[in-house]
Amino acid sequence: MDIIINPDKKNWNNILERPQASNEAISGIVIAILEDVKKNGDDAVRKYSKGFDGISFGDFAVSKDELAAAENLISTELKSALQIAAANIRKFHEKQVSYVDPVETMPGIKCWQRSVAIEKVGFYIPGGSAPLFSTVLMLGIPAQIAGSKEIVLCTPPSRDGTICPAILYAAQLCGIRNIYKVGGAQAIAAMAYGTETIPKSYKIFGPGNRFVTLAKQLVQQDGVGIDMPAGPSELLVFADETALPEFVAADLLSQAEHGPDSQVILLTNLESIAKRVREEVTKQLEKLPRKEIAIAALENSKAIIINDHATAIELINEYAPEHLIIACKNAESVANNIINAGSVFLGNYSPESAGDYASGTNHVLPTNGYARSYSGVNIESFIKKITYQQLTKEGLQNISDTVIEMAAAEGLEAHKNAITVRLKK
Amino acid sequence: MDIIINPDKKNWNNILERPQASNEAISGIVIAILEDVKKNGDDAVRKYSKGFDGISFGDFAVSKDELAAAENLISTELKSALQIAAANIRKFHEKQVSYVDPVETMPGIKCWQRSVAIEKVGFYIPGGSAPLFSTVLMLGIPAQIAGSKEIVLCTPPSRDGTICPAILYAAQLCGIRNIYKVGGAQAIAAMAYGTETIPKSYKIFGPGNRFVTLAKQLVQQDGVGIDMPAGPSELLVFADETALPEFVAADLLSQAEHGPDSQVILLTNLESIAKRVREEVTKQLEKLPRKEIAIAALENSKAIIINDHATAIELINEYAPEHLIIACKNAESVANNIINAGSVFLGNYSPESAGDYASGTNHVLPTNGYARSYSGVNIESFIKKITYQQLTKEGLQNISDTVIEMAAAEGLEAHKNAITVRLKK
Repeated sequence: MDIIINPDKKNWNNILERPQASNEAISGIVIAILEDVKKNGDDAVRKYSKGFDGISFGDFAVSKDELAAAENLISTELKSALQIAAANIRKFHEKQVSYVDPVETMPGIKCWQRSVAIEKVGFYIPGGSAPLFSTVLMLGIPAQIAGSKEIVLCTPPSRDGTICPAILYAAQLCGIRNIYKVGGAQAIAAMAYGTETIPKSYKIFGPGNRFVTLAKQLVQQDGVGIDMPAGPSELLVFADETALPEFVAADLLSQAEHGPDSQVILLTNLESIAKRVREEVTKQLEKLPRKEIAIAALENSKAIIINDHATAIELINEYAPEHLIIACKNAESVANNIINAGSVFLGNYSPESAGDYASGTNHVLPTNGYARSYSGVNIESFIKKITYQQLTKEGLQNISDTVIEMAAAEGLEAHKNAITVRLKK
Repeated sequence: MDIIINPDKKNWNNILERPQASNEAISGIVIAILEDVKKNGDDAVRKYSKGFDGISFGDFAVSKDELAAAENLISTELKSALQIAAANIRKFHEKQVSYVDPVETMPGIKCWQRSVAIEKVGFYIPGGSAPLFSTVLMLGIPAQIAGSKEIVLCTPPSRDGTICPAILYAAQLCGIRNIYKVGGAQAIAAMAYGTETIPKSYKIFGPGNRFVTLAKQLVQQDGVGIDMPAGPSELLVFADETALPEFVAADLLSQAEHGPDSQVILLTNLESIAKRVREEVTKQLEKLPRKEIAIAALENSKAIIINDHATAIELINEYAPEHLIIACKNAESVANNIINAGSVFLGNYSPESAGDYASGTNHVLPTNGYARSYSGVNIESFIKKITYQQLTKEGLQNISDTVIEMAAAEGLEAHKNAITVRLKK
């Protein structure tokens, strides 16, 4: 982790560059998979599951028995943890349901907005060796609160054809029953276009590898919604002398262990802090089972010293981190000046892992600087707003001159007629 | 306009198919434009403006003088119409601003969400022979209410290098000052990547032709947000014996005149209604200046008779129309059963053109069935939700077992450490 001191603004872009793989090498494969599944449905899904994951299936739907058995395959402690996490996530997301009163914009013109759940949604949950059961809760609970009627979940099975029971148990906690043992781009294709077995979804959610992410971006061009284009995970810790180097190091490592392409940035006002954190990182690293992954991720990582507080905040907003820990005095004031970030953690006792699992906030967040324009998953991700209007005769009269004038000026005579034909009555 | 009576559900897909052009022929050109503008900035923008629009510019930014002069180039009536429309749009969109209270999910764990405007947004406004100044209000007003700080507007000029003064006047009504005389895919590229003259935007909004729409979809893969993939406009009118054929015909034609690829669908319970509407369409069509366009659009259009009310509603939701007029008894009850539509107009005195211009609702809406997963433009389109959390020592203790259990089960030891290192203190 290099230490960079008061870098010139014109170098920020270079310093903050994310490790990014080009999609060129894989796009041909992904396009071929999408087209094949679109055309050949289940047969194509089976073919790629066998080719990529070495799994041969007759039926890749999870049976009722498999689903029911999951509960007995995990410990009481894990079940209890999942229940507590689910309850917190539910509490936080339930508050987000909003209702907007109708507006009478002019006498006789009533306009309103109605929130309607997206009827059919599909979830991709990474599985195999690193099953992300926590993501099931992060997607399933808001979908359930929003009221989505058909939820489909695809996840790649282990080599023995089973799915991690914690995924199945988490799915049950949010009422998900349509689960398929399919991973990769073929899973995204199946949910986007539908197959004989897997129903079509209108919007697809969830993290995945480069194949999955590219497939999501491509099906979007066919009109299927996606939550966001997910990339490697990232964390920026903004620390001053009130931060504890031991805590900061632990947080940086909790991000670094995600994958070799993860990025962690330490931003601080004093070089001495950066040095102490770096020492702690080296010390804590030794004991980690995923040490090699963390070391690789740390190569992409930087410690940046910026003495000026306002400039430091500017850099955070420029970087737009997925996760931001503010371990500074006046954390609230800093937090209110953040305009680009996914999820923000305030103070010394708010580690990212609390939010990753159980505090209640969502962990499906915009990476790669997308926090400049995207939100993390929330209730709105599962909702469309339909607008309505109802005009009385009087309302139409009140607005007629305005509409006629504008329609005429845009050269749209039939738009004008739709008003005049009514006024004549 | 063919009349189809009680079609079998398995034929709905065919009957409701939208006229759709393939992007294959244009994607090479659009990709080349995007790459060129990304690399060569203003020079590339100038090259394509000259090549496609026949415009040679030194400076394509609209000057302060041009902007100030616009007000005197349009009639008092049009100015007044734009002001009234702007006021209604403002009233409707202001109500959509929502605030969510913080939640204490467990003692000592406070989570909240903050709405923050997307800082930099770009608008594309079709210009030239059909300048859509109404769209300036539909995008500019919600952006202004949300609080976006940098708004850029690109619109293709006329051959003489000028921009329709109504566009410039509408822009002023919503505080937009950065306006550029650039159209087509090069405009989208310039806003997505930034050039020497045109600042980079984080999210791009607005309708356009196939080149513009494809360019928007492609820059999205580079992490730039877009409002939605826009396609040809469409209207479904659901009418029963309480509807007036003259009104219905005028509404269908107001949609049909948009473009030869527009689609209008009449859905009704009685063949006699369809026949009378069709007669009225023929009659009214004669007087339209954009008759040829409307005739072409009507070729894509259908009158569908479905006797059963519930089945009819199912068909509407299956089609997911951009615009839906409900000219039926019990319009409210029908409206509440709609789950897929962009904007809905209730009763005989609510023509689509009211909402297109001035009632207050937004006219930037999901076409092509995208209403299944997308909303029309609203305040939320300009806002990101950042989540926050702050844990006390007690809060962290309360959640520690849960996080440790889940992190261990996902095999993420460093996530666990971020908790234990704090508990030890």
